[in-house]
Amino acid sequence: MPDHKFEVLGLGNAIVDVIAPAEDDLLERENLNKGAMVLIDEERSASLYGLMGSTTITSGGSAANTIVGLASFGIRSAFIGKVKNDEAGHAFSHDIRSSGVHFGTPFATEGPGTARCLVLVTPDGERTMSTYLGACQNLGPDDVDESLVKASSILYLEGYLWDPPAAKQAFIKAAAIAHAAGNQVALTLSDAFCVDRYRDEFLDLMRTKTVDIIFANQHELRSLYQTADFDTAVTAFRDENLLGIVTRSEHGSMVVTREETHAVPASPIERLVDTTGAGDLFAAGFLAGLVRGSDLKDAARLGGLAAAEIIQHYGARPHVRLSDLAAENGLALPL
Amino acid sequence: MPDHKFEVLGLGNAIVDVIAPAEDDLLERENLNKGAMVLIDEERSASLYGLMGSTTITSGGSAANTIVGLASFGIRSAFIGKVKNDEAGHAFSHDIRSSGVHFGTPFATEGPGTARCLVLVTPDGERTMSTYLGACQNLGPDDVDESLVKASSILYLEGYLWDPPAAKQAFIKAAAIAHAAGNQVALTLSDAFCVDRYRDEFLDLMRTKTVDIIFANQHELRSLYQTADFDTAVTAFRDENLLGIVTRSEHGSMVVTREETHAVPASPIERLVDTTGAGDLFAAGFLAGLVRGSDLKDAARLGGLAAAEIIQHYGARPHVRLSDLAAENGLALPL
Repeated sequence: MPDHKFEVLGLGNAIVDVIAPAEDDLLERENLNKGAMVLIDEERSASLYGLMGSTTITSGGSAANTIVGLASFGIRSAFIGKVKNDEAGHAFSHDIRSSGVHFGTPFATEGPGTARCLVLVTPDGERTMSTYLGACQNLGPDDVDESLVKASSILYLEGYLWDPPAAKQAFIKAAAIAHAAGNQVALTLSDAFCVDRYRDEFLDLMRTKTVDIIFANQHELRSLYQTADFDTAVTAFRDENLLGIVTRSEHGSMVVTREETHAVPASPIERLVDTTGAGDLFAAGFLAGLVRGSDLKDAARLGGLAAAEIIQHYGARPHVRLSDLAAENGLALPL
Repeated sequence: MPDHKFEVLGLGNAIVDVIAPAEDDLLERENLNKGAMVLIDEERSASLYGLMGSTTITSGGSAANTIVGLASFGIRSAFIGKVKNDEAGHAFSHDIRSSGVHFGTPFATEGPGTARCLVLVTPDGERTMSTYLGACQNLGPDDVDESLVKASSILYLEGYLWDPPAAKQAFIKAAAIAHAAGNQVALTLSDAFCVDRYRDEFLDLMRTKTVDIIFANQHELRSLYQTADFDTAVTAFRDENLLGIVTRSEHGSMVVTREETHAVPASPIERLVDTTGAGDLFAAGFLAGLVRGSDLKDAARLGGLAAAEIIQHYGARPHVRLSDLAAENGLALPL
């Protein structure tokens, strides 16, 4: 493999998270599906915000969280995503760059504002998300910098890119450049309802080998294969002949290839606060291990460590240096 | 005492907190005094922000945090403070109102933007603050709504109001209205360096009985009496013949009156994350107890509970309903 300038490049929706504690009855009154992500328009965003309590605002976005997690592990990382040149967009840019990530996508200077995700955190720590995509709707193939994709060992994409109109073309273009350069392409399925919206297309990406590595949680996997039975879904997943990783909340994770399946337990936590970013940070840890040559089980352990850190506080950006956390747990990555 | 529409009215600097984890060496390089608050200008705010990692943004402001804490205990509360009609100002207004606080101070429509406090949280959980006062500099006596002050049993003021030019006049005006109406006036000394800036004036407020209740931490108290010896400071404090409350971090708190001194232990915590707001939320719990007729020791216990909640996460606004927390700990407040 050539010596790449970047180890992982992420492409995703660039979003600012607006988080507040909420009681379950607010979800019911607002017809929100607990644990899921729903797309909303600007008007709904304003009205739902009005119903939220005192908020905590952090940069978010699924792939962006993963890339920041990778940088925190010391992995050379870059991100492509679209924000507007407004206050939230400047905060997003500050946060991702200050985390050590290369981020050069030009601001949208007109059109809708920077995307925001309203995150309601119920007392059980579960997060329920309502996303106004805003400026993400302006992400398109022109934002895919060919030299950047070529220079990155792994391209990491989120299924949520199927939601805004032009982003899937950016996805396809980036994946083609990556494969032509001999690089790997990873995809997270993002959300069970997102899988439901784009099931055939996601299966097609897998079966045409447009992607090599797939991250899914158990709900997404069951949605993908339209089965209530987890084992049935895992068997079908194994038969895709990809590198598959399934996250299972407190039950840990499974690495699924055609040849072997490994179950890795979850990392212990003191207190579950907010599950936002658990899957994103698991992917960060796993990819950190993978790109630095860890075996698959250690990669999954690194994923578990990062997920455990993120669910013990609000927001999906790490509060400690994940490379330190890895070292403290005997999983220091080689340089 | 007449039946008041509001139980506590706060007057303070209306600030948005921008929080990030930081290593101790950043404090050293930037000549920041760990645990203290320093005033900065807009240019310094921008340059320091540029040195911070990925941020978490929450509404803050010392007295504002206390008032939101009071509302979370179910206390009828109101706040006076100045923000601009910018994005941060709208967020501040949303957050305080959504917490159940009456907040009607008009936006500044010109002049500097909403105040921001850059909060660096070191691995030991200590917070170090750099505050750009922005629109707080436009808070003045005209913002003090006489009927609101009269209608509130306790007026709560922060020492930080001595920093912006016109706010101390608002403070003096509000205290005079409160006392003329037979209401009580409370003051937090805010910060040891703030005490150092305004020591004579703060002592004068105490000795002219412009204030009846004083909150101080041990550093502020030692600064007030210019002594390294805590017991000497407590003795001097007792002789002021006010209701004094001293917070001592993990050593709990002391209630100090001329007649009696009670030490109350700190509430246990699982994990110290960020001390921001510990004193503010202690004051919330204490005032909640006081205004609802708890004895002084139970009031201090309520303060300890609220402080323990706030230091286990980023930001100085509670993530749980403090009235629930009080009830779970056998300290439910009467209606």
